[in-house]
Amino acid sequence: MDLESIKTELGAFVRERDWGQFHTPENLAKSISIEASELLECYQWGSNADVNQVQQELADVFIYCLLLGEKYNLNLEEVILEKIEFNKQKYPVEKSRGKSDKYDRL
Amino acid sequence: MDLESIKTELGAFVRERDWGQFHTPENLAKSISIEASELLECYQWGSNADVNQVQQELADVFIYCLLLGEKYNLNLEEVILEKIEFNKQKYPVEKSRGKSDKYDRL
Amino acid sequence: MDLESIKTELGAFVRERDWGQFHTPENLAKSISIEASELLECYQWGSNADVNQVQQELADVFIYCLLLGEKYNLNLEEVILEKIEFNKQKYPVEKSRGKSDKYDRL
Amino acid sequence: MDLESIKTELGAFVRERDWGQFHTPENLAKSISIEASELLECYQWGSNADVNQVQQELADVFIYCLLLGEKYNLNLEEVILEKIEFNKQKYPVEKSRGKSDKYDRL
Repeated sequence: MDLESIKTELGAFVRERDWGQFHTPENLAKSISIEASELLECYQWGSNADVNQVQQELADVFIYCLLLGEKYNLNLEEVILEKIEFNKQKYPVEKSRGKSDKYDRL
Repeated sequence: MDLESIKTELGAFVRERDWGQFHTPENLAKSISIEASELLECYQWGSNADVNQVQQELADVFIYCLLLGEKYNLNLEEVILEKIEFNKQKYPVEKSRGKSDKYDRL
Repeated sequence: MDLESIKTELGAFVRERDWGQFHTPENLAKSISIEASELLECYQWGSNADVNQVQQELADVFIYCLLLGEKYNLNLEEVILEKIEFNKQKYPVEKSRGKSDKYDRL
Repeated sequence: MDLESIKTELGAFVRERDWGQFHTPENLAKSISIEASELLECYQWGSNADVNQVQQELADVFIYCLLLGEKYNLNLEEVILEKIEFNKQKYPVEKSRGKSDKYDRL
Protein backbone atom coordinates (compact mmCIF):
# COMPACT_ATOMS: atom_id res chain seq x y z
CA MET A 1 0.00 0.00 0.00
CA ASP A 2 1.46 3.31 -1.00
CA LEU A 3 0.38 5.15 2.06
CA GLU A 4 1.83 8.44 0.98
CA SER A 5 -0.41 8.86 -2.06
CA ILE A 6 -3.43 7.93 0.05
CA LYS A 7 -2.49 10.45 2.71
CA THR A 8 -2.10 13.13 0.05
CA GLU A 9 -5.53 12.36 -1.42
CA LEU A 10 -7.08 12.26 2.03
CA GLY A 11 -5.48 15.50 3.11
CA ALA A 12 -6.79 17.31 0.03
CA PHE A 13 -10.27 15.82 0.51
CA VAL A 14 -10.45 17.07 4.09
CA ARG A 15 -8.93 20.49 3.35
CA GLU A 16 -11.26 21.21 0.45
CA ARG A 17 -14.22 20.61 2.75
CA ASP A 18 -12.67 22.43 5.70
CA TRP A 19 -13.36 19.39 7.84
CA GLY A 20 -10.16 19.50 9.87
CA GLN A 21 -12.07 21.44 12.53
CA PHE A 22 -14.23 18.36 13.23
CA HIS A 23 -11.36 15.90 13.29
CA THR A 24 -10.28 16.04 16.90
CA PRO A 25 -8.66 12.81 18.04
CA GLU A 26 -11.73 12.07 20.16
CA ASN A 27 -14.13 12.56 17.25
CA LEU A 28 -11.92 10.40 15.03
CA ALA A 29 -11.88 7.65 17.67
CA LYS A 30 -15.70 7.78 17.79
CA SER A 31 -15.77 7.67 14.00
CA ILE A 32 -13.51 4.62 13.83
CA SER A 33 -15.81 2.83 16.26
CA ILE A 34 -18.93 3.86 14.34
CA GLU A 35 -17.50 2.68 11.02
CA ALA A 36 -16.23 -0.56 12.58
CA SER A 37 -19.78 -1.17 13.68
CA GLU A 38 -21.12 -0.57 10.18
CA LEU A 39 -18.62 -3.17 9.04
CA LEU A 40 -19.89 -5.53 11.74
CA GLU A 41 -23.42 -4.92 10.50
CA CYS A 42 -22.45 -6.79 7.31
CA TYR A 43 -22.30 -9.88 9.54
CA GLN A 44 -25.16 -9.02 11.91
CA TRP A 45 -27.28 -12.07 11.16
CA GLY A 46 -24.69 -14.48 9.84
CA SER A 47 -21.34 -15.11 8.28
CA ASN A 48 -22.29 -14.31 4.68
CA ALA A 49 -21.58 -10.70 3.89
CA ASP A 50 -21.87 -8.62 0.77
CA VAL A 51 -18.20 -8.26 -0.23
CA ASN A 52 -18.77 -4.90 -1.85
CA GLN A 53 -20.33 -3.57 1.34
CA VAL A 54 -17.50 -5.04 3.45
CA GLN A 55 -14.97 -3.36 1.20
CA GLN A 56 -16.58 0.04 1.56
CA GLU A 57 -16.96 -0.11 5.31
CA LEU A 58 -13.43 -1.44 5.74
CA ALA A 59 -12.16 1.48 3.68
CA ASP A 60 -13.99 3.89 6.01
CA VAL A 61 -12.34 2.32 9.05
CA PHE A 62 -8.93 2.66 7.39
CA ILE A 63 -9.58 6.27 6.41
CA TYR A 64 -10.41 7.36 9.95
CA CYS A 65 -7.49 5.32 11.33
CA LEU A 66 -5.13 7.07 8.93
CA LEU A 67 -6.52 10.47 9.94
CA LEU A 68 -6.08 9.65 13.63
CA GLY A 69 -2.53 8.47 13.01
CA GLU A 70 -1.82 11.80 11.29
CA LYS A 71 -3.14 13.73 14.31
CA TYR A 72 -0.45 12.17 16.46
CA ASN A 73 2.18 12.16 13.71
CA LEU A 74 2.52 8.42 14.12
CA ASN A 75 4.74 6.35 11.90
CA LEU A 76 2.08 3.71 11.39
CA GLU A 77 4.35 1.12 9.87
CA GLU A 78 6.59 1.30 12.93
CA VAL A 79 3.65 1.34 15.34
CA ILE A 80 2.10 -1.76 13.78
CA LEU A 81 5.36 -3.71 13.64
CA GLU A 82 6.04 -2.83 17.27
CA LYS A 83 2.59 -4.06 18.24
CA ILE A 84 3.14 -7.37 16.43
CA GLU A 85 6.43 -7.68 18.35
CA PHE A 86 4.61 -6.90 21.60
CA ASN A 87 1.93 -9.50 20.81
CA LYS A 88 4.63 -12.10 20.21
CA GLN A 89 5.73 -11.70 23.82
CA LYS A 90 2.16 -11.58 25.09
CA TYR A 91 1.20 -14.74 23.23
CA PRO A 92 4.20 -17.10 23.24
CA VAL A 93 3.85 -19.79 20.56
CA GLU A 94 4.13 -22.69 23.00
CA LYS A 95 1.30 -21.36 25.20
CA SER A 96 -1.06 -19.96 22.62
CA ARG A 97 -0.74 -22.36 19.69
CA GLY A 98 -4.19 -23.38 18.45
CA LYS A 99 -5.99 -21.54 21.24
CA SER A 100 -8.12 -18.42 21.06
CA ASP A 101 -7.79 -17.71 24.79
CA LYS A 102 -6.87 -14.26 25.99
CA TYR A 103 -3.32 -13.85 27.28
CA ASP A 104 -4.47 -13.69 30.90
CA ARG A 105 -6.10 -17.10 30.62
CA LEU A 106 -3.31 -18.97 28.88
CA MET B 1 3.82 2.29 5.01
CA ASP B 2 5.40 -0.77 3.53
CA LEU B 3 2.37 -2.94 3.76
CA GLU B 4 4.07 -5.97 2.31
CA SER B 5 6.57 -6.34 5.14
CA ILE B 6 3.78 -5.90 7.69
CA LYS B 7 1.67 -8.53 5.96
CA THR B 8 4.62 -10.92 5.95
CA GLU B 9 5.21 -10.39 9.67
CA LEU B 10 1.53 -10.74 10.41
CA GLY B 11 1.16 -13.88 8.33
CA ALA B 12 4.05 -15.54 10.17
CA PHE B 13 2.68 -14.47 13.55
CA VAL B 14 -0.71 -16.03 12.81
CA ARG B 15 0.69 -19.19 11.22
CA GLU B 16 3.08 -19.92 14.08
CA ARG B 17 0.14 -19.81 16.49
CA ASP B 18 -2.21 -21.69 14.17
CA TRP B 19 -4.74 -18.93 14.60
CA GLY B 20 -5.99 -18.89 11.02
CA GLN B 21 -8.80 -21.21 12.11
CA PHE B 22 -10.27 -18.44 14.30
CA HIS B 23 -9.95 -15.72 11.70
CA THR B 24 -13.20 -16.05 9.81
CA PRO B 25 -14.29 -12.75 8.24
CA GLU B 26 -17.09 -12.52 10.80
CA ASN B 27 -14.74 -13.01 13.75
CA LEU B 28 -12.33 -10.46 12.29
CA ALA B 29 -15.17 -7.95 11.88
CA LYS B 30 -16.11 -8.48 15.55
CA SER B 31 -12.46 -8.07 16.49
CA ILE B 32 -12.12 -4.80 14.59
CA SER B 33 -15.16 -3.46 16.41
CA ILE B 34 -13.86 -4.65 19.79
CA GLU B 35 -10.46 -3.06 19.25
CA ALA B 36 -12.03 0.16 17.94
CA SER B 37 -13.94 0.30 21.18
CA GLU B 38 -10.77 -0.14 23.23
CA LEU B 39 -9.39 2.79 21.29
CA LEU B 40 -12.52 4.78 22.08
CA GLU B 41 -12.04 3.90 25.75
CA CYS B 42 -8.92 6.13 25.69
CA TYR B 43 -11.37 9.01 25.28
CA GLN B 44 -14.22 7.67 27.44
CA TRP B 45 -14.27 10.54 29.92
CA GLY B 46 -12.68 13.31 27.91
CA SER B 47 -10.49 14.40 25.07
CA ASN B 48 -7.12 13.82 26.75
CA ALA B 49 -5.85 10.37 25.96
CA ASP B 50 -2.63 8.54 26.77
CA VAL B 51 -0.85 8.63 23.41
CA ASN B 52 0.97 5.39 24.04
CA GLN B 53 -2.35 3.64 24.73
CA VAL B 54 -3.93 5.21 21.63
CA GLN B 55 -1.01 4.00 19.55
CA GLN B 56 -1.35 0.43 20.74
CA GLU B 57 -5.11 0.24 20.26
CA LEU B 58 -4.88 1.89 16.86
CA ALA B 59 -2.29 -0.72 15.86
CA ASP B 60 -4.71 -3.47 16.90
CA VAL B 61 -7.47 -2.00 14.74
CA PHE B 62 -5.07 -1.85 11.78
CA ILE B 63 -3.89 -5.42 12.33
CA TYR B 64 -7.39 -6.88 12.25
CA CYS B 65 -8.30 -4.67 9.28
CA LEU B 66 -5.27 -5.96 7.37
CA LEU B 67 -6.20 -9.56 8.22
CA LEU B 68 -9.76 -9.01 7.01
CA GLY B 69 -8.50 -7.41 3.80
CA GLU B 70 -6.34 -10.50 3.22
CA LYS B 71 -9.36 -12.80 3.65
CA TYR B 72 -11.02 -11.15 0.69
CA ASN B 73 -7.78 -10.64 -1.24
CA LEU B 74 -8.49 -6.95 -1.36
CA ASN B 75 -6.06 -4.48 -2.84
CA LEU B 76 -6.42 -2.10 0.06
CA GLU B 77 -4.71 0.85 -1.58
CA GLU B 78 -7.18 0.64 -4.45
CA VAL B 79 -10.16 0.09 -2.15
CA ILE B 80 -9.30 3.14 -0.03
CA LEU B 81 -8.65 5.43 -3.00
CA GLU B 82 -11.94 4.31 -4.56
CA LYS B 83 -13.74 5.11 -1.34
CA ILE B 84 -12.23 8.59 -1.19
CA GLU B 85 -13.39 9.08 -4.79
CA PHE B 86 -16.87 7.85 -3.81
CA ASN B 87 -16.95 10.23 -0.84
CA LYS B 88 -16.06 13.12 -3.10
CA GLN B 89 -19.28 12.53 -5.01
CA LYS B 90 -21.28 11.95 -1.84
CA TYR B 91 -20.01 15.13 -0.25
CA PRO B 92 -19.61 17.79 -2.97
CA VAL B 93 -17.38 20.63 -1.79
CA GLU B 94 -19.96 23.35 -2.37
CA LYS B 95 -22.58 21.56 -0.24
CA SER B 96 -20.46 20.13 2.53
CA ARG B 97 -17.79 22.78 3.09
CA GLY B 98 -17.44 23.54 6.79
CA LYS B 99 -20.36 21.32 7.75
CA SER B 100 -20.32 18.00 9.60
CA ASP B 101 -23.80 17.04 8.37
CA LYS B 102 -24.40 13.59 6.92
CA TYR B 103 -24.81 13.45 3.14
CA ASP B 104 -28.57 12.87 3.42
CA ARG B 105 -29.01 16.10 5.34
CA LEU B 106 -26.91 18.39 3.18
CA MET C 1 -37.97 -5.11 36.60
CA ASP C 2 -38.55 -2.59 39.30
CA LEU C 3 -36.76 0.22 37.60
CA GLU C 4 -37.37 2.69 40.40
CA SER C 5 -35.34 0.80 42.99
CA ILE C 6 -32.52 0.35 40.49
CA LYS C 7 -32.53 4.06 39.66
CA THR C 8 -32.41 4.90 43.36
CA GLU C 9 -29.44 2.58 43.92
CA LEU C 10 -27.69 3.91 40.84
CA GLY C 11 -28.29 7.53 41.78
CA ALA C 12 -26.78 6.99 45.23
CA PHE C 13 -23.80 5.11 43.77
CA VAL C 14 -23.01 7.97 41.40
CA ARG C 15 -23.61 10.73 43.95
CA GLU C 16 -21.41 9.15 46.61
CA ARG C 17 -18.52 9.10 44.11
CA ASP C 18 -19.30 12.54 42.70
CA TRP C 19 -19.28 11.04 39.24
CA GLY C 20 -22.16 13.08 37.85
CA GLN C 21 -19.60 15.53 36.46
CA PHE C 22 -18.29 12.83 34.09
CA HIS C 23 -21.71 11.67 32.95
CA THR C 24 -22.42 13.99 30.07
CA PRO C 25 -24.76 12.45 27.51
CA GLU C 26 -21.86 12.14 25.09
CA ASN C 27 -19.65 10.33 27.61
CA LEU C 28 -22.52 8.02 28.52
CA ALA C 29 -23.09 7.22 24.83
CA LYS C 30 -19.40 6.35 24.48
CA SER C 31 -19.65 4.24 27.62
CA ILE C 32 -22.66 2.31 26.32
CA SER C 33 -20.74 1.55 23.15
CA ILE C 34 -17.61 0.51 25.07
CA GLU C 35 -19.57 -1.82 27.35
CA ALA C 36 -21.54 -3.25 24.42
CA SER C 37 -18.20 -4.11 22.89
CA GLU C 38 -17.04 -5.85 26.05
CA LEU C 39 -20.23 -7.87 25.83
CA LEU C 40 -19.44 -8.67 22.20
CA GLU C 41 -15.98 -9.79 23.29
CA CYS C 42 -17.66 -12.73 25.06
CA TYR C 43 -18.47 -13.98 21.54
CA GLN C 44 -15.31 -12.80 19.77
CA TRP C 45 -14.15 -16.22 18.62
CA GLY C 46 -17.39 -18.17 18.67
CA SER C 47 -20.90 -18.59 19.90
CA ASN C 48 -20.06 -20.11 23.29
CA ALA C 49 -19.83 -17.44 25.92
CA ASP C 50 -19.23 -17.52 29.66
CA VAL C 51 -22.73 -16.76 30.98
CA ASN C 52 -21.42 -15.07 34.09
CA GLN C 53 -19.31 -12.74 31.97
CA VAL C 54 -22.24 -12.03 29.63
CA GLN C 55 -24.39 -11.21 32.63
CA GLN C 56 -21.91 -8.70 34.01
CA GLU C 57 -21.30 -6.94 30.72
CA LEU C 58 -25.01 -6.84 29.93
CA ALA C 59 -25.60 -5.24 33.34
CA ASP C 60 -23.02 -2.57 32.50
CA VAL C 61 -24.77 -1.76 29.23
CA PHE C 62 -28.09 -1.45 31.08
CA ILE C 63 -26.57 0.76 33.77
CA TYR C 64 -25.20 3.29 31.30
CA CYS C 65 -28.43 3.17 29.29
CA LEU C 66 -30.43 3.94 32.42
CA LEU C 67 -28.09 6.84 33.27
CA LEU C 68 -28.45 8.25 29.77
CA GLY C 69 -32.23 7.92 29.95
CA GLU C 70 -32.14 9.89 33.21
CA LYS C 71 -30.11 12.69 31.60
CA TYR C 72 -32.94 13.31 29.17
CA ASN C 73 -35.70 12.53 31.69
CA LEU C 74 -36.99 9.85 29.38
CA ASN C 75 -39.85 7.61 30.33
CA LEU C 76 -38.06 4.50 29.14
CA GLU C 77 -41.07 2.22 29.25
CA GLU C 78 -42.92 4.59 26.94
CA VAL C 79 -39.89 5.11 24.69
CA ILE C 80 -39.36 1.37 24.22
CA LEU C 81 -43.03 0.61 23.57
CA GLU C 82 -43.17 3.43 21.03
CA LYS C 83 -40.11 2.02 19.29
CA ILE C 84 -41.67 -1.44 19.08
CA GLU C 85 -44.76 0.20 17.58
CA PHE C 86 -42.55 2.06 15.11
CA ASN C 87 -40.75 -1.16 14.18
CA LYS C 88 -44.08 -2.84 13.51
CA GLN C 89 -44.72 -0.31 10.76
CA LYS C 90 -41.17 -0.50 9.46
CA TYR C 91 -41.26 -4.27 9.27
CA PRO C 92 -44.78 -5.36 8.25
CA VAL C 93 -45.38 -9.04 9.07
CA GLU C 94 -46.22 -10.03 5.48
CA LYS C 95 -42.99 -8.55 4.12
CA SER C 96 -40.54 -9.43 6.85
CA ARG C 97 -41.73 -12.81 8.08
CA GLY C 98 -38.80 -15.23 8.30
CA LYS C 99 -36.35 -12.75 6.79
CA SER C 100 -33.48 -10.90 8.41
CA ASP C 101 -33.31 -8.27 5.66
CA LYS C 102 -33.17 -4.62 6.57
CA TYR C 103 -36.37 -2.64 5.98
CA ASP C 104 -34.94 -0.88 2.93
CA ARG C 105 -34.30 -4.21 1.22
CA LEU C 106 -37.64 -5.88 1.90
CA MET D 1 -40.56 0.43 33.92
CA ASP D 2 -43.05 -2.36 33.66
CA LEU D 3 -40.71 -4.83 32.09
CA GLU D 4 -43.30 -7.55 31.84
CA SER D 5 -45.57 -5.67 29.45
CA ILE D 6 -42.58 -4.73 27.31
CA LYS D 7 -41.40 -8.34 27.20
CA THR D 8 -44.87 -9.47 26.18
CA GLU D 9 -45.01 -6.92 23.36
CA LEU D 10 -41.50 -7.79 22.26
CA GLY D 11 -42.16 -11.53 22.33
CA ALA D 12 -45.24 -11.10 20.12
CA PHE D 13 -43.37 -8.81 17.72
CA VAL D 14 -40.59 -11.37 17.25
CA ARG D 15 -42.93 -14.38 17.02
CA GLU D 16 -45.17 -12.79 14.40
CA ARG D 17 -42.13 -12.22 12.18
CA ASP D 18 -40.57 -15.61 12.97
CA TRP D 19 -37.37 -13.84 13.86
CA GLY D 20 -36.44 -16.05 16.80
CA GLN D 21 -34.29 -18.10 14.41
CA PHE D 22 -31.96 -15.10 13.93
CA HIS D 23 -31.73 -14.21 17.61
CA THR D 24 -28.84 -16.35 18.76
CA PRO D 25 -27.03 -14.83 21.75
CA GLU D 26 -24.08 -14.03 19.50
CA ASN D 27 -26.23 -12.23 16.93
CA LEU D 28 -27.98 -10.30 19.70
CA ALA D 29 -24.61 -9.27 21.16
CA LYS D 30 -23.56 -8.00 17.73
CA SER D 31 -26.88 -6.19 17.43
CA ILE D 32 -26.47 -4.47 20.81
CA SER D 33 -23.05 -3.26 19.73
CA ILE D 34 -24.34 -2.07 16.35
CA GLU D 35 -27.23 -0.15 17.92
CA ALA D 36 -24.96 1.31 20.61
CA SER D 37 -22.83 2.63 17.80
CA GLU D 38 -25.82 4.21 16.09
CA LEU D 39 -26.52 5.90 19.40
CA LEU D 40 -22.90 7.08 19.53
CA GLU D 41 -23.32 8.45 16.01
CA CYS D 42 -25.71 11.04 17.48
CA TYR D 43 -22.60 12.49 19.17
CA GLN D 44 -20.07 11.79 16.40
CA TRP D 45 -19.05 15.41 15.83
CA GLY D 46 -20.01 16.99 19.12
CA SER D 47 -22.02 16.95 22.28
CA ASN D 48 -25.28 18.28 20.82
CA ALA D 49 -27.51 15.44 19.77
CA ASP D 50 -31.01 15.26 18.35
CA VAL D 51 -32.97 14.03 21.38
CA ASN D 52 -35.52 12.24 19.28
CA GLN D 53 -32.78 10.32 17.51
CA VAL D 54 -31.08 9.50 20.82
CA GLN D 55 -34.37 8.22 22.17
CA GLN D 56 -34.91 5.88 19.24
CA GLU D 57 -31.39 4.47 19.24
CA LEU D 58 -31.44 4.04 23.01
CA ALA D 59 -34.70 2.12 22.69
CA ASP D 60 -33.05 -0.19 20.15
CA VAL D 61 -30.18 -0.90 22.53
CA PHE D 62 -32.67 -1.71 25.30
CA ILE D 63 -34.72 -3.96 23.03
CA TYR D 64 -31.76 -6.13 22.05
CA CYS D 65 -30.53 -6.18 25.66
CA LEU D 66 -33.93 -7.41 26.82
CA LEU D 67 -33.94 -10.10 24.12
CA LEU D 68 -30.46 -11.26 25.14
CA GLY D 69 -31.51 -11.34 28.80
CA GLU D 70 -34.45 -13.54 27.80
CA LYS D 71 -32.14 -15.97 25.97
CA TYR D 72 -30.33 -16.68 29.22
CA ASN D 73 -33.46 -16.41 31.39
CA LEU D 74 -31.80 -13.69 33.39
CA ASN D 75 -33.58 -11.84 36.13
CA LEU D 76 -32.35 -8.48 34.92
CA GLU D 77 -33.35 -6.54 38.00
CA GLU D 78 -31.25 -8.88 40.12
CA VAL D 79 -28.36 -8.91 37.67
CA ILE D 80 -28.18 -5.11 37.56
CA LEU D 81 -28.43 -4.67 41.33
CA GLU D 82 -25.69 -7.28 41.81
CA LYS D 83 -23.49 -5.41 39.36
CA ILE D 84 -24.00 -2.13 41.20
CA GLU D 85 -23.04 -3.96 44.40
CA PHE D 86 -19.96 -5.36 42.67
CA ASN D 87 -19.00 -1.90 41.40
CA LYS D 88 -19.27 -0.52 44.94
CA GLN D 89 -16.47 -2.88 45.97
CA LYS D 90 -14.46 -2.21 42.83
CA TYR D 91 -14.68 1.55 43.26
CA PRO D 92 -14.57 2.34 47.00
CA VAL D 93 -15.87 5.84 47.70
CA GLU D 94 -12.68 7.02 49.41
CA LYS D 95 -10.50 6.01 46.47
CA SER D 96 -12.71 6.91 43.53
CA ARG D 97 -14.50 10.05 44.69
CA GLY D 98 -14.34 12.73 42.00
CA LYS D 99 -12.07 10.65 39.76
CA SER D 100 -12.85 8.99 36.46
CA ASP D 101 -9.87 6.62 36.69
CA LYS D 102 -10.33 2.93 36.04
CA TYR D 103 -10.27 0.71 39.12
CA ASP D 104 -6.80 -0.64 38.29
CA ARG D 105 -5.35 2.86 38.34
CA LEU D 106 -6.91 4.11 41.55
